[in-house]
Amino acid sequence: MQNLQNLFEGIQPVVYRDGRILFLDQTALPAETRWIEIDSAESCRDAIKRLVVRGAPAIGIAAAFGMLAASRAAAENGFEGYCAHMKKARDLLAASRPTAVNLFWALDRVEKKILACRDRPVGEIKALVEEEAVKIQKEDQEVCRAIGVHGQEIVKDGMTVLTHCNAGALATSRYGTALAPIYAAKERGFDVKVFVDETRPLLQGSRLTAYELLQSGVHVTVITDGMAASVMGKGWIDACIVGCDRMAANGDAANKIGTYGVALLAKAHHIPFYVACPLSTVDPATLEGKDIEIEERDPAEVTRFMGRPTAPAGVEAYNPAFDVTPHHLISGILTEKGLIRAPYAENLERLLSSSRFPGSPAPVMPRG
Amino acid sequence: MQNLQNLFEGIQPVVYRDGRILFLDQTALPAETRWIEIDSAESCRDAIKRLVVRGAPAIGIAAAFGMLAASRAAAENGFEGYCAHMKKARDLLAASRPTAVNLFWALDRVEKKILACRDRPVGEIKALVEEEAVKIQKEDQEVCRAIGVHGQEIVKDGMTVLTHCNAGALATSRYGTALAPIYAAKERGFDVKVFVDETRPLLQGSRLTAYELLQSGVHVTVITDGMAASVMGKGWIDACIVGCDRMAANGDAANKIGTYGVALLAKAHHIPFYVACPLSTVDPATLEGKDIEIEERDPAEVTRFMGRPTAPAGVEAYNPAFDVTPHHLISGILTEKGLIRAPYAENLERLLSSSRFPGSPAPVMPRG
Repeated sequence: MQNLQNLFEGIQPVVYRDGRILFLDQTALPAETRWIEIDSAESCRDAIKRLVVRGAPAIGIAAAFGMLAASRAAAENGFEGYCAHMKKARDLLAASRPTAVNLFWALDRVEKKILACRDRPVGEIKALVEEEAVKIQKEDQEVCRAIGVHGQEIVKDGMTVLTHCNAGALATSRYGTALAPIYAAKERGFDVKVFVDETRPLLQGSRLTAYELLQSGVHVTVITDGMAASVMGKGWIDACIVGCDRMAANGDAANKIGTYGVALLAKAHHIPFYVACPLSTVDPATLEGKDIEIEERDPAEVTRFMGRPTAPAGVEAYNPAFDVTPHHLISGILTEKGLIRAPYAENLERLLSSSRFPGSPAPVMPRG
Repeated sequence: MQNLQNLFEGIQPVVYRDGRILFLDQTALPAETRWIEIDSAESCRDAIKRLVVRGAPAIGIAAAFGMLAASRAAAENGFEGYCAHMKKARDLLAASRPTAVNLFWALDRVEKKILACRDRPVGEIKALVEEEAVKIQKEDQEVCRAIGVHGQEIVKDGMTVLTHCNAGALATSRYGTALAPIYAAKERGFDVKVFVDETRPLLQGSRLTAYELLQSGVHVTVITDGMAASVMGKGWIDACIVGCDRMAANGDAANKIGTYGVALLAKAHHIPFYVACPLSTVDPATLEGKDIEIEERDPAEVTRFMGRPTAPAGVEAYNPAFDVTPHHLISGILTEKGLIRAPYAENLERLLSSSRFPGSPAPVMPRG
């Protein structure tokens, strides 16, 4: 896995360098590589809302850096004032997107850090907030690397994997979740191929997944979402691996709209369907998939494309950003602590309670 | 049904008026209403290839008028020369698109008409070719109206139907096949709603189906192809009705890419899945779906949209225009002679052999 680091030097959605917080503008990819500087909770919230940064783990990381931006901008010297300022930033960021649980998880971590240090000078707390944001990002890298390693149980030499949307480097710190096993297999010199659904309406599959796989030298073929059944029917797909925006305690998985359909099609073709999911994406407070709030976005995303209308003016459209795949359609959940199988409620609970911090992943690989 | 005629005065893909052959350019819809004049087999072939006119029945009608254009342009006065000229036109048109059987069916009808009249003067034969093209279009209108009438067995008041691609007025002479029951229900004052998959890559669902339903006052909601599973899962869909480009003798149905997936999703949700199919679309010479040639189109249709790239330069894409839905996923086949159920091989054969001309539909409604 040594070379993975180099492979991904260029693909990072959130960069913190020389004190600057930079988000890669994923709305402009692959045509343009453009960075957006974050200097406040507001600019971070807007970037998350506009999908400049997207993907559950990356949203968590972005939110942590949004808190850092807010922390820096805080003029208050007293704890009460600082704390009120940060609470406002937290609420603002929490309202950016409702589905990805990593957002709330990261905000909670920063908030807890602040509250735990209430007896220290604000200047010191600010330094700890910075440390926490950097740590959240660093831990995610380790989590993703571990998912890649455990993914070798799924991705064998010569396999072709179908994925949906983007759960790659661009959706995380680096490496990705669903794509981590692909990159790990590539590093081992395995011949792996990927089919990716373009993932309308916002084309994260063709714009982002195809982009990062192509950059990394992985053989990738883009199809429209409606072609997935056809390529499965031809026997071209050995496994499906997708990411996750929020997993309920019972293993039901909210992910990009279209994922539920892929899971049903995989089942009909007897193809295993895996969800790659860092433990930070599991929400033990959400018992079942039906309890997950599904964000509905502007219908114009469906009736327009790159600013051009794709449907007659005035027509109605429906635009849920996610759907929920029930756990009974999932062949295995790939976490940084290994691949788990049903029964998910018990096995997820066991993994979560063995984490160093409940609900947050322990570093599973030595840093180096 | 009396008002249907008026409803569709404006929506016709092939118009023959004052001796001019005009194709509505469906590549420009819904943004622009532009007509292309056909004056040769070549211009007709190009229009079919470019999808100016598309949809199995409409392709058949277009091909018949392409033969008419060629017939008019024939300089030869002797039968042999005229016949050779028309044979060339036939071959040219037959090579335009491989999947829709109506293309070959219409070309065969015109060719048979020519050969049957070999003892008449070429001038007379030319008049008969014109008559045959007009007749093919007229018969298709009757067929579509009959499909609408028989569709009342499926589409009841208050129902919501999901369709894929466009099998409406724009895909036929008028009324459509899959949409004919919707229009017929609308005429009866029924409250029917339609969800339409946008149908990437060429968006015939959002561009064409949404356009003609909106024009006709039918409540339509556009979704991306990946949302179909989600709306089915919510219990919003009572039935799926799609068109067909070629049906094998056993009932396997080739239709726009994505249809097979819709059929699998419908089955998983216990939603009936119907194929609307004029008997001219049934190809008794094709025994099973696997024998149907599936057209593969330019991968750039997947990686670009309206001239703009949707994927990184150089990425591979796969672009089959159709897929095959096996007959066991089909709840019923809606023809101009009624709704038939499994076993399809026997029931299709019975219908075909009861037609006035084997393989061609008899007029089922009095003209008026």
